[in-house]
Amino acid sequence: MYAGGTVITAPGTFNPRDPSPFSAPAGQMLHVDHVYAQYKIPAGRKQALPLVMWHGCLSPSWETTPDGREGFESIFLRRGWKTYVIDWPRTGRSGKSSVGATITPGFSENAAWNAWRLGVWPNFFPGSQFPHDPASLDHFFREGGTNNGPSDNDVSVNAVSALFDKIGPGVMMTHSASGLLGFLTAIKNPKVKGVYAYEPNEGVFPTGEVPAPIPNAAGGLMSFHEVSRADFKKLTRIPIQIIFGDYIPSKPDPTNIARDQWRVRLQGVRLFVRTVNKHGGNATLVHLPEIGIHGNSHFSFTDKNNIQIANLESAWLHRHRLDVPKEGR
Amino acid sequence: MYAGGTVITAPGTFNPRDPSPFSAPAGQMLHVDHVYAQYKIPAGRKQALPLVMWHGCLSPSWETTPDGREGFESIFLRRGWKTYVIDWPRTGRSGKSSVGATITPGFSENAAWNAWRLGVWPNFFPGSQFPHDPASLDHFFREGGTNNGPSDNDVSVNAVSALFDKIGPGVMMTHSASGLLGFLTAIKNPKVKGVYAYEPNEGVFPTGEVPAPIPNAAGGLMSFHEVSRADFKKLTRIPIQIIFGDYIPSKPDPTNIARDQWRVRLQGVRLFVRTVNKHGGNATLVHLPEIGIHGNSHFSFTDKNNIQIANLESAWLHRHRLDVPKEGR
Repeated sequence: MYAGGTVITAPGTFNPRDPSPFSAPAGQMLHVDHVYAQYKIPAGRKQALPLVMWHGCLSPSWETTPDGREGFESIFLRRGWKTYVIDWPRTGRSGKSSVGATITPGFSENAAWNAWRLGVWPNFFPGSQFPHDPASLDHFFREGGTNNGPSDNDVSVNAVSALFDKIGPGVMMTHSASGLLGFLTAIKNPKVKGVYAYEPNEGVFPTGEVPAPIPNAAGGLMSFHEVSRADFKKLTRIPIQIIFGDYIPSKPDPTNIARDQWRVRLQGVRLFVRTVNKHGGNATLVHLPEIGIHGNSHFSFTDKNNIQIANLESAWLHRHRLDVPKEGR
Repeated sequence: MYAGGTVITAPGTFNPRDPSPFSAPAGQMLHVDHVYAQYKIPAGRKQALPLVMWHGCLSPSWETTPDGREGFESIFLRRGWKTYVIDWPRTGRSGKSSVGATITPGFSENAAWNAWRLGVWPNFFPGSQFPHDPASLDHFFREGGTNNGPSDNDVSVNAVSALFDKIGPGVMMTHSASGLLGFLTAIKNPKVKGVYAYEPNEGVFPTGEVPAPIPNAAGGLMSFHEVSRADFKKLTRIPIQIIFGDYIPSKPDPTNIARDQWRVRLQGVRLFVRTVNKHGGNATLVHLPEIGIHGNSHFSFTDKNNIQIANLESAWLHRHRLDVPKEGR
């Protein structure tokens, strides 16, 4: 299904006699900036709330793993959850955009190997849970790359919020680049009843409590997203859990700039969690190595131990009673 | 899953200390020009061969209908078929392309209404089987528009042929713009055991038997795709069925240029079917109004009577024993 988006119309009057009617814009419509959701409803007993899965930079990562095992879409379907896997607005199957784009093939996969903590190119980290075989790597590097227009926070949040309006209350799952937008969608729409974020790029902070920017090893600064105090308060009314994997450096690493970002992002998210809880919220940060789960890349939910990772999420969903109808919550 | 594609590498040596490692191409890889296939295997008894569904210009049209009923993916799954719904190489989830593109939002939906034979904009044809309600139209106009690179016949055929190599023998289903490419894939790969084409844009012709171009009402000429006689012969060894819907003009219609193309395309495909059969093949053209099925748009497989259309296809699959293991065929 689709949700959200707008309709724009070119000035003039449509002329069906035009010899090139597809390239004569006058008076014609264009539907754009929506979100596409691939949804599956399990047979039999169902958990109460649907899970809305918003991918990060790599688009089909909820559906399957690089080595072809079942992804979280199927794992959670089997556990009775209704799933909605969305294509980020203006990417993939949500491609129609109100704003154009120039696409240039970008050679960046070695940086991705480092950034997403498979290892230090071309080697894997010892103990890595990422599948190592060539076929898995080939799959992995074919993911993503589907932008049809510039990413725009408002466009994305509006479309995904419209999806919640269409399907009703649900749980937002995000990964990486969709992390911030998942929190912003939860602020916008009270139908978001919980947020489960895998390595979110950043959290948000209330006016007056925005931390100082954190320097990264590339010589830049990571600054933080500010929202009003009233908006921030909304995030204290829903449960939030955040998962980070292994191999995140504890101090600046100028030898591997792509990876260093996670040191800074993890610091920022720790501050976010602390701020949510200070305001009476219920946010938890699980840094997997700290609970004895080692070897995870940026994609713990597709790594070889992804069932173990899914079990953590199932336990959280159950603990917060997101699996039972509202009357029981 | 992904199939096919290539890997290209930028000259130079990758430097993990570069302060912008994602935008420093030197020595980095790029995996491109593959096809993404969304696959579903039904529980229980299975038909022998998978169905590979290749969309036309509008990408999610196999999955659902504009009014939210089940699409052919689900209908055929329920009938025991394994389904592979592909995103056209360089579009949607198959987005990574070796060649860039400039995307400009194109106002063309009124022309699409006419071209795809919903009616004459803004009216529906009397008796149209296309869902008429505003929500269905909103869905319809949000489909497609996901090109990430120029369409290239060789790239597309190579990728989809690689998919057949990966999954084994199967039946190719195409729609509209993928029609020609489906025939070319069947020529390239003997694992294509049948082609079922909804309103293919064109057929192919053997050297020496290419028809003269047919004039269209826009003052242009539609020419035909030529293949070698040896290649053409390969299409005579598999069953082919082609479906065309209603409202195709029988003579040139300069008042509605977008729709007139189907008059010319239907003529061309009639000649293709005749040529296949002249060479000993088994191709059938079903023009739905001629067998008493009226009201279908360019999307008979998502129109309100799509179960009836699916039944035609099921009967054809069974008639050609594509539903039984090879030993029985």
